[in-house]
Amino acid sequence: MDLIFLGTSSGVPTKQRNVSGVALTEPQGRGWFLIDCGEGTQHQLLHTRLSAAQLKAILITHVHGDHCYGLPGLLASAAMSGRQAPLTIIAPAGIAEWLEAVQAHTALALPYALDFVATETLDEITIGAYRIQSTPLSHRVPSYAYQFTEHAVEGQLKVQALKAAGIPAGPLWGQLQRGHDVQLNGQTYCSADYVDAQRAPRQVVIAGDNDTPSLLTEACRHAQLLIHEATYTQDIAQKVGDVGHSDAARVTQFAEQQGLPALILTHFSPRYHLDPRHSPSLSELEAEAGAAYTGTLKLAQDFDHYHLDKNGQLTQKTET
Amino acid sequence: MDLIFLGTSSGVPTKQRNVSGVALTEPQGRGWFLIDCGEGTQHQLLHTRLSAAQLKAILITHVHGDHCYGLPGLLASAAMSGRQAPLTIIAPAGIAEWLEAVQAHTALALPYALDFVATETLDEITIGAYRIQSTPLSHRVPSYAYQFTEHAVEGQLKVQALKAAGIPAGPLWGQLQRGHDVQLNGQTYCSADYVDAQRAPRQVVIAGDNDTPSLLTEACRHAQLLIHEATYTQDIAQKVGDVGHSDAARVTQFAEQQGLPALILTHFSPRYHLDPRHSPSLSELEAEAGAAYTGTLKLAQDFDHYHLDKNGQLTQKTET
Repeated sequence: MDLIFLGTSSGVPTKQRNVSGVALTEPQGRGWFLIDCGEGTQHQLLHTRLSAAQLKAILITHVHGDHCYGLPGLLASAAMSGRQAPLTIIAPAGIAEWLEAVQAHTALALPYALDFVATETLDEITIGAYRIQSTPLSHRVPSYAYQFTEHAVEGQLKVQALKAAGIPAGPLWGQLQRGHDVQLNGQTYCSADYVDAQRAPRQVVIAGDNDTPSLLTEACRHAQLLIHEATYTQDIAQKVGDVGHSDAARVTQFAEQQGLPALILTHFSPRYHLDPRHSPSLSELEAEAGAAYTGTLKLAQDFDHYHLDKNGQLTQKTET
Repeated sequence: MDLIFLGTSSGVPTKQRNVSGVALTEPQGRGWFLIDCGEGTQHQLLHTRLSAAQLKAILITHVHGDHCYGLPGLLASAAMSGRQAPLTIIAPAGIAEWLEAVQAHTALALPYALDFVATETLDEITIGAYRIQSTPLSHRVPSYAYQFTEHAVEGQLKVQALKAAGIPAGPLWGQLQRGHDVQLNGQTYCSADYVDAQRAPRQVVIAGDNDTPSLLTEACRHAQLLIHEATYTQDIAQKVGDVGHSDAARVTQFAEQQGLPALILTHFSPRYHLDPRHSPSLSELEAEAGAAYTGTLKLAQDFDHYHLDKNGQLTQKTET
């Protein structure tokens, strides 16, 4: 279960950061989900192993351009690369109307169906490996978080018992783990004897723009990881005034109270420099965040690749 | 009068080439025009000296996404960077309707006016340094070429005569060149005596997608430079079938018959590799083009920067 950040800038792209987009892979196979699709997301994908053919669904958190203007180009390019499978788009209803206008006015004929699900009326939906739910947030326009929960969680193999019974490692272990009894040398081995109780399903919450992190209290109750915007540091947020965004301290205070194991911040105002010698810098934002939070804290950069293992531990991978 | 290529790929971006966009600067000052605006054009601009504040007009050749999907993001970013001056958009009427839908559905409120001019009804318009005219082309959707002609061409100073008369180099020379008589030490010096007949105005034609270059015969009669798509080589164009595009040979044959001094080809199918060791390569396309044309021929790459001097000579500059 991997996360690849395709854009981490708020509002406008910079030379180092594209606007919002994050990919979530399925635990098995090459399927993946795209959450937000700012302009240039398809360009970023060219530098990853993610393929439009394997895209299971696109989810848009809200209608602001830095979260959706890459959608028409991505859909057009997927068509040109031969995609024929229907594609689910979970988004505020305005996105469906906008894409209809795009298709009508720019002669965009897609050879595959778009299956729209309006976030406003989404209760829950299961696609591929995940059960997906949404939570309304607080922003200048309706904005949502999406919660991804593994819906099929295999039990843990009792390796000692398997070895003691003389069952060789390989396909038989996999069948037992998936709940099937197996035959070996005329004898039947029962799955229940070799598989422990199920582990907790992994759960990730990916939030759109939001000035009230506590709205995620329920959604984050069992989550191992929250991905949330931290557009500003506190001082600059106060100068900028109420624009519907969170500052780093506000998000990390919520995460700390919630006891969240891991938090990745993203969607930084372009004013924050990567180079800590220039103020304001992302290292100032990181310091503010770290002061309030004792869990695993990351500030996302474009092409950062994170892995959430079966125990819910977050680690960073080196390849994109 | 400079041209900077922001994207030279057809249909989809590649790692080396963005989709269509070309900047044309004014001879004086920092004003410029953007012709086509594929997705990611604003990202490309971050790597140039061109500023959204100095943009005089955007011209779109046709409604296909690889020529216009960067428009909403560019307009939004210009707003966020503080632009307040009205912006002229010259485009097929469908673009105006599409942008209205974008603004309505994605909560895009621009703090400056968009002055739309529908290409379908454009006779000619003068903006900044240029008189702009359009020519209908042949493509799968209505597509246009835009012709830019310098409308104020100063005469050439007679430097010998100026020096002989004892008029010092400086502001007086500029006034004489712009047609004003001047006073010096109680004596009047007439502009007509110190300025030669006007040079020919520079003229550039920038064409959209088009399978019939001869439609540009009239528009190119006095042009020093044509920028035209050459999506394919002839062999691949035949395999692909009739899709409304030109191959390199077709464009260069037209340019040769027309006696065009210079031609820049662009909008190459992503199948053409930059590396000539991989076929099909752009060097094959270049060879096909060069076989038919004896003028100055260039194949555009992203960030190529060309200068058209007052004599209509095309040279390539090193900086973007």
